[in-house]
Amino acid sequence: MAGQKPSLVIFDTVAIVGVGLIGGSLGMAARRKGIARRVIGIGRTEQKLMRAKILGAIDGYSLDIDNGASEADLLILCTPVPLVAPTLARMADSLKEGAIVTDAGSTKREIVAACDAVIPDGCFFVGGHPMAGSEQTGVDAARADIFVDATYVLTPGASTDLSALGRITEFAGALGARVEILTPEQHDAAVAVISHLPHAIAGALMQLAEDSQRETGRTFALAAGSFKDLTRIADSSPELWRDICLTNADSLSQAVADLQALLDGFRDALEARDEAGIQRFFEQSRQIRETYLRITQ
Amino acid sequence: MAGQKPSLVIFDTVAIVGVGLIGGSLGMAARRKGIARRVIGIGRTEQKLMRAKILGAIDGYSLDIDNGASEADLLILCTPVPLVAPTLARMADSLKEGAIVTDAGSTKREIVAACDAVIPDGCFFVGGHPMAGSEQTGVDAARADIFVDATYVLTPGASTDLSALGRITEFAGALGARVEILTPEQHDAAVAVISHLPHAIAGALMQLAEDSQRETGRTFALAAGSFKDLTRIADSSPELWRDICLTNADSLSQAVADLQALLDGFRDALEARDEAGIQRFFEQSRQIRETYLRITQ
Repeated sequence: MAGQKPSLVIFDTVAIVGVGLIGGSLGMAARRKGIARRVIGIGRTEQKLMRAKILGAIDGYSLDIDNGASEADLLILCTPVPLVAPTLARMADSLKEGAIVTDAGSTKREIVAACDAVIPDGCFFVGGHPMAGSEQTGVDAARADIFVDATYVLTPGASTDLSALGRITEFAGALGARVEILTPEQHDAAVAVISHLPHAIAGALMQLAEDSQRETGRTFALAAGSFKDLTRIADSSPELWRDICLTNADSLSQAVADLQALLDGFRDALEARDEAGIQRFFEQSRQIRETYLRITQ
Repeated sequence: MAGQKPSLVIFDTVAIVGVGLIGGSLGMAARRKGIARRVIGIGRTEQKLMRAKILGAIDGYSLDIDNGASEADLLILCTPVPLVAPTLARMADSLKEGAIVTDAGSTKREIVAACDAVIPDGCFFVGGHPMAGSEQTGVDAARADIFVDATYVLTPGASTDLSALGRITEFAGALGARVEILTPEQHDAAVAVISHLPHAIAGALMQLAEDSQRETGRTFALAAGSFKDLTRIADSSPELWRDICLTNADSLSQAVADLQALLDGFRDALEARDEAGIQRFFEQSRQIRETYLRITQ
């Protein structure tokens, strides 16, 4: 097929459960780049799978969750977070010897522990979190290039061997992503701070802005530009974020508490009219951001 | 001069103290649109004022803070927030009868109270906050079009009469801005929520990210995309934000406390694994954002 370079094939058959934005983009990228010889979509809704095929995200599809991935060398579970392990449990008996299984969930501790518990002997689970996508959902928003220069976290667990980790690393790298390997605990603690907490904050800011709007009548009119950008993530799916927060409740709760403690100090400085303390707060933050930009550039 | 349309002149002579990003942009816009017949820059540093003249922000300049605005029909104080009222106090004796004075400070209660106390009889003070600009500073970043579609808040006080308010409204409108008229108290309460609190949050998030980076070693590497956007405002000047926070300490401290209370509720829901409560939190926020986008579009 056009664009396929057979020499790059990393997995003969890739099966993807849940061919939406991320699953569809994975399929498109794997097919276009010739990383997989064949991509099979697995799901419940034939119409969606037909659409995925028309869009070039998959070569074919199966409505059989239990046995649809029996030929897969790589199985990618792109279901909502709470369904990853239950889906693997249903498919476990049909997986072939040596199959590698990964997922695309935004939290990793619970998923890796639950998947390690149900993965059959002779198969390997490697937690995955491609940090790509947007507020959009569905296969119509899928694009083969969303992983280019994106971070793709892999979180090996008890059922990961080095060879499986190596092949998934190669796969994610071939998509154009920068691969980071962390423990599930490190991953969840980090994303609690840099992703989940910001979502909670954006939500809280919208609620505060509404209270203020009720008092002044003009708060929304004043809230242009940067406020609009800052709260853009409040557009995200409430169901998705409920699941993410609940499967990372400990780390997120800790991150919220840490933020509150920092804000306590800031408020104390404000109330004491502590000029030096307030300036130091902003100076520290700017210095950290400079370091961060230098590291990530 | 090219581009001037004398029929639009609202003020014959405009004097601007502090010809940086905002002051310079005001001068450029007033000159290019023919809103002022003459724009005089006032400051301490001749080199900066010469640069402002070369860039077309002013027609001429004066290094005499005390008497440089004696011919001004409109005086715009674009100094740092703590210097607005002291600068007006120094210039007060030289202002001509009927002169209108405004400022460009990001907080309004303290400025309006202090300026009302020093403005001479027969002159009028109208608090102003053009909500334009960026993380950049200095006249080299000035542009005549930064006020187009920006919000320009006016906060009348005890020394504002209706005619002065009308002329400043006309002036800001002629720059292309959307004018909002609020009390200084309403302004400060609203911007505490939609601007000052987000700056404090961005600072706190950077500090949390650094703590996490120290623990995981990879937090910064994971913090791409939306985190980078969310913390962009942590680049802002620590001195500027110290002054803004301290002159709005009461409202900002209240906004921080309100945020912490909302986060308490969110954390309680997390710790109780309250699925419905977490979902409701994100649903409410999304609904409010939809309302906000509808109102501001």
